[in-house]
Amino acid sequence: MAFSTDSLTFTADGLIPAIAQDAASGEILMMAWMNAESVERTLETGRVTYWSRSRQAFWVKGESSGHVQELVDLRVDCDRDCLLVLVRQTGPACHTNRRSCFYTAIRDGQEVELMEPEV
Amino acid sequence: MAFSTDSLTFTADGLIPAIAQDAASGEILMMAWMNAESVERTLETGRVTYWSRSRQAFWVKGESSGHVQELVDLRVDCDRDCLLVLVRQTGPACHTNRRSCFYTAIRDGQEVELMEPEV
Repeated sequence: MAFSTDSLTFTADGLIPAIAQDAASGEILMMAWMNAESVERTLETGRVTYWSRSRQAFWVKGESSGHVQELVDLRVDCDRDCLLVLVRQTGPACHTNRRSCFYTAIRDGQEVELMEPEV
Repeated sequence: MAFSTDSLTFTADGLIPAIAQDAASGEILMMAWMNAESVERTLETGRVTYWSRSRQAFWVKGESSGHVQELVDLRVDCDRDCLLVLVRQTGPACHTNRRSCFYTAIRDGQEVELMEPEV
């Protein structure tokens, strides 16, 4: 069946959450948002392209930092209201220079930092 | 540092997205939503507990199906507006009886089904 972004369910703001996973290691890198056109741009260019809610602009991941995400596979969930992008990540994914944004664990009521910023 | 759900950023509806990942295989199983109390219940009970937006009720994953998610680790992202739960998943995570909700890939403009329902 041909894919169309018309089949996706977007929020009232026209957005859909996209989870980025390292295609090689399986590590979850980050979660950000896409609109219909950023899904299309991601599929067309192979460069993962989010929608920045703060800047209200397309956000080609790594465009300024060089920490690009090359698309390996794009997946849609059963409800069609969430995307999973498997990527080849160059450098750290997080703006804190950590590999993943999910570097804080909650264990026995305490916050535990799992990763250092890369240098 | 002691963890408090007060440090999380919730949507206007009081919700935060939670990504469930199989702790052993690294597979992404599903994405659902939590409110502050479901985060607390998940940490206290070790049973992953979402907030069902359709039913407007707590949703102890697997309570009716038996396909429970036992919490292995809970992580918060840098912006504190997304959670990652690493789980031990009993049975399929998806309501379609597939292991993961992300069973549809988009390849060359076509939808490709990656998983069959388990029996």
